[in-house]
Amino acid sequence: MREGGSVAKKAIVLLSGGLDSATCMAIAKSEHFELHALSFDYGQRHDVELAAAKRVARFFSAAQHRVIRIDSAAVAGSSLTSSKPVPKNRSMRRIAARIPSTYVPARNTIFLSYALACAEVAGAGDIFIGVNALDYSGYPDCRPEFIAAFERLANLATKAGVEGRRMTIHAPLVNLTKAQIIRRGAALGVDYSITHSCYDPLAGGVACGVCDSCVLRKKGFREAGVEDPTTYGNQRGPRKDRKWFAL
Amino acid sequence: MREGGSVAKKAIVLLSGGLDSATCMAIAKSEHFELHALSFDYGQRHDVELAAAKRVARFFSAAQHRVIRIDSAAVAGSSLTSSKPVPKNRSMRRIAARIPSTYVPARNTIFLSYALACAEVAGAGDIFIGVNALDYSGYPDCRPEFIAAFERLANLATKAGVEGRRMTIHAPLVNLTKAQIIRRGAALGVDYSITHSCYDPLAGGVACGVCDSCVLRKKGFREAGVEDPTTYGNQRGPRKDRKWFAL
Repeated sequence: MREGGSVAKKAIVLLSGGLDSATCMAIAKSEHFELHALSFDYGQRHDVELAAAKRVARFFSAAQHRVIRIDSAAVAGSSLTSSKPVPKNRSMRRIAARIPSTYVPARNTIFLSYALACAEVAGAGDIFIGVNALDYSGYPDCRPEFIAAFERLANLATKAGVEGRRMTIHAPLVNLTKAQIIRRGAALGVDYSITHSCYDPLAGGVACGVCDSCVLRKKGFREAGVEDPTTYGNQRGPRKDRKWFAL
Repeated sequence: MREGGSVAKKAIVLLSGGLDSATCMAIAKSEHFELHALSFDYGQRHDVELAAAKRVARFFSAAQHRVIRIDSAAVAGSSLTSSKPVPKNRSMRRIAARIPSTYVPARNTIFLSYALACAEVAGAGDIFIGVNALDYSGYPDCRPEFIAAFERLANLATKAGVEGRRMTIHAPLVNLTKAQIIRRGAALGVDYSITHSCYDPLAGGVACGVCDSCVLRKKGFREAGVEDPTTYGNQRGPRKDRKWFAL
């Protein structure tokens, strides 16, 4: 129930457990939606992020948090779901230069499709996704034109759309820099210490500090002027420590 | 290898095991694609259709047949995936009147999203789906405008699309009547006896003969002037026989 007694509208919020989706959830909450969090287990290397998603859903008192298992064979080919090495210690220029090997084929299309199914079942007309096109421009399915195309599809694909109940895809972070996202989230009270960004965490889920995602996270906090609560490992190169012990 | 030594292009073909998808596969084969069949196990009542899909993939010597498990909780709410009764003995007018309870939320969006992921992984630029808007107009995600919207999305969503390798969604049956589909398939040599359409099969996978899908199938063969190889059960009403034995 919202203040004044009106019933809160439901929103499906895609939640990876990273800082973007946590901020996105904070925005949905600030807009008084009843939060239905949706996470995916797709055999990602960094499955500690699912534990982070759970913490974030609890932090925001989500009405529901569902974890859907994705058949990982369908999304094979990415370094996030295979034994390909995750790129390390790359400059911002190199990170932005091309679609990285961490790209998972059609991932956001699959995630949004499930969100759409869940929205229809729950009677929700709003889906939130924390994609961001600015600071991480390598993924094709993080761009505003992708989101607009999915919204159009959603309104053609569903019974709700056909019957005139509009489906809206919210991507409130799409045009923000990482620093702007962090500032926005900090203002909304997000506790970033419970979020997880690293693609290739060390033992105990500690962030490696050198993958693209850690590089962007560190830079974001630095530029936002917000203290970074993350503990990073001390790796300097691509898993040299592990190689040493393997000799 | 195609005649003349050129390498066949790969196509992902969505295959339910029904007569539409079998015909769709025959069309893809007639266009000399290397067939990569894709089926889904989504907790459907009529899982005998997965056995039919296997037979059809074998019949057309598909290079690959993958069955992806869908978390059925995401598509709950349909009579195909729940204990709601499947409508029986409905007239064509009633079948066409509104979106039926057998509608599975966002089903074709989810199926096409997985097909898109598989296409990217396999390096395929073509996806075939046997949707049909004419004889079964109740499902919003079977319409040409839905297919066009998905194709647009597919070219924005993927690395292939961004790099200029076009992704095409083929829906060759979309504007055909069931009778035209059957005539087309028969001309291409489809053995319809190995396909399965019934939503609510009797013991041994025998078609009930009275659900919407059986009604449409029977009518299609009748109007096509093609002999229907299907064995139908003798049900006249909604499961009266079972009720009898339950008393």
